Amino acid sequence: MRREIPIHQPRDAAYVERVRASFALQPAMALIGAELAVVEPGYTEIHLPYRDAITQQHGFIHGGVVGMIADSAAGYAANTLTPADTSVLTVEYKLNLLAPAEGERLIARGEVIRPGRTLIITKAEVFAIREEKWTLCAVMQQTIMTMHARQERTD
Amino acid sequence: MRREIPIHQPRDAAYVERVRASFALQPAMALIGAELAVVEPGYTEIHLPYRDAITQQHGFIHGGVVGMIADSAAGYAANTLTPADTSVLTVEYKLNLLAPAEGERLIARGEVIRPGRTLIITKAEVFAIREEKWTLCAVMQQTIMTMHARQERTD
Amino acid sequence: MRREIPIHQPRDAAYVERVRASFALQPAMALIGAELAVVEPGYTEIHLPYRDAITQQHGFIHGGVVGMIADSAAGYAANTLTPADTSVLTVEYKLNLLAPAEGERLIARGEVIRPGRTLIITKAEVFAIREEKWTLCAVMQQTIMTMHARQERTD
Amino acid sequence: MRREIPIHQPRDAAYVERVRASFALQPAMALIGAELAVVEPGYTEIHLPYRDAITQQHGFIHGGVVGMIADSAAGYAANTLTPADTSVLTVEYKLNLLAPAEGERLIARGEVIRPGRTLIITKAEVFAIREEKWTLCAVMQQTIMTMHARQERTD
Repeated sequence: MRREIPIHQPRDAAYVERVRASFALQPAMALIGAELAVVEPGYTEIHLPYRDAITQQHGFIHGGVVGMIADSAAGYAANTLTPADTSVLTVEYKLNLLAPAEGERLIARGEVIRPGRTLIITKAEVFAIREEKWTLCAVMQQTIMTMHARQERTD
Repeated sequence: MRREIPIHQPRDAAYVERVRASFALQPAMALIGAELAVVEPGYTEIHLPYRDAITQQHGFIHGGVVGMIADSAAGYAANTLTPADTSVLTVEYKLNLLAPAEGERLIARGEVIRPGRTLIITKAEVFAIREEKWTLCAVMQQTIMTMHARQERTD
Repeated sequence: MRREIPIHQPRDAAYVERVRASFALQPAMALIGAELAVVEPGYTEIHLPYRDAITQQHGFIHGGVVGMIADSAAGYAANTLTPADTSVLTVEYKLNLLAPAEGERLIARGEVIRPGRTLIITKAEVFAIREEKWTLCAVMQQTIMTMHARQERTD
Repeated sequence: MRREIPIHQPRDAAYVERVRASFALQPAMALIGAELAVVEPGYTEIHLPYRDAITQQHGFIHGGVVGMIADSAAGYAANTLTPADTSVLTVEYKLNLLAPAEGERLIARGEVIRPGRTLIITKAEVFAIREEKWTLCAVMQQTIMTMHARQERTD
């Protein structure tokens, strides 16, 4: 499961805390049980343990949930590279489901392909891990927009 | 909120029961609170009431949840047109998020564009309804594959 | 072949001339024989007569050529709604090919779904017309970006 | 410009000849001047020299032409892995344009992500090469369908 060394440079020294704080404010991520496991420049990983509550009719993790963590992993990968006073929003994404999301847990890897000033192009891969065997179960290509001075919710 | 009269002909007289039974077996749909409100030939609607648990960091319904109901509404629209002994799976979809999913509820409308024997091309629109004002917040284009003699989970 | 009445308002009274002038500067459109047949607010049509030179190995018009006119029709639909001192560029599109592009001519209809200040979301449908029978052969969903004060090429 | 070693196994020993013969039957590829430069298991490259005839209004190679070679490179990558008596067709693709296609030539690299029996998921990257500097100008994600016993055109 080789991964290339990240080559992106963050523009905000506190990007890890900023991204983690934003993730922690998303009730929907807590609802499905997703964890933001890795935050690096231009790269994040979301890990999702299997639970019955997030499955579909065949007992696999729901494709919509696979899409949620792919979207979030890649969106936060973009967010690691934006300036301090920004947030990001998903313009669009395209997801191919390659195999059933069957396993003890899923790992979504989001990565920046091209960081633009306004638009950031990203991709994600989602793996299903079953008895430590990794199966690529989804690939995604995404467009993210940087929003300047966007207020996050403060609960 | 005009909608064209459906022109598709179901090949399974019991398509409504079959589709509703499949939806009822999806714990992930129950988790987010989604209801399969309308089932017609080549068309379904999924309704989703607002709840804090499905929001993101700005207090809107999470884009990933919007994607989940768009994917499901269009996938079940395809499923209304497949023969009795089949299920469907999502090959891929592409979702554009147009506006924040802000409102008392969301309505996802899934519709078949072209029903093929193996592949069914569909689309979905998701509206956010706030004080009875409808805002189009997402559009999706999707490819569905028909699976013959696929066993659904029996709990 | 019903089409809804356009509801978009152009912000540049000379949008027809501006869009037609831009199209006329695209050698690639001339190469394949494409004509910009209709220019309305938020809507354009590109017509493409059949020629052997634009076919693929089965004798149908090449899917890549179908993509070209879909991309251009929707991009110019966006361009009808931008201010005078702007051009547009394609951020991304997603194209489903539904049927072989077989006929005497193709008609690509591009339409704006949502006109934003920076990003414009559009769609296109491509029909193949054979002995006046219309077949929907492709659908596309697209993201366009407005570029301010972008210089067009002056030959 | 590193590329991973191909790990796919062709099921047809004559895949190179079969794929090259199919490409040679596409007038649209000749029209734009595209060459099938590399054919390996699960991988192809299409090279496209700059010509005025394939540009858009800013003098760059037209985005639709970029899409054509991305679509073809990835489609033929899929075709290298299908049995002897088959052809392939594009179900859908999604293309992000990252930078203007500006240079002496373009190189589209198509690669199989997952080879299924009916559906093959692929990707493509398109580079613009200017004075030997490579710029990634497009990325694509695609679904290909295998057609059994499909007759190619014999001129």
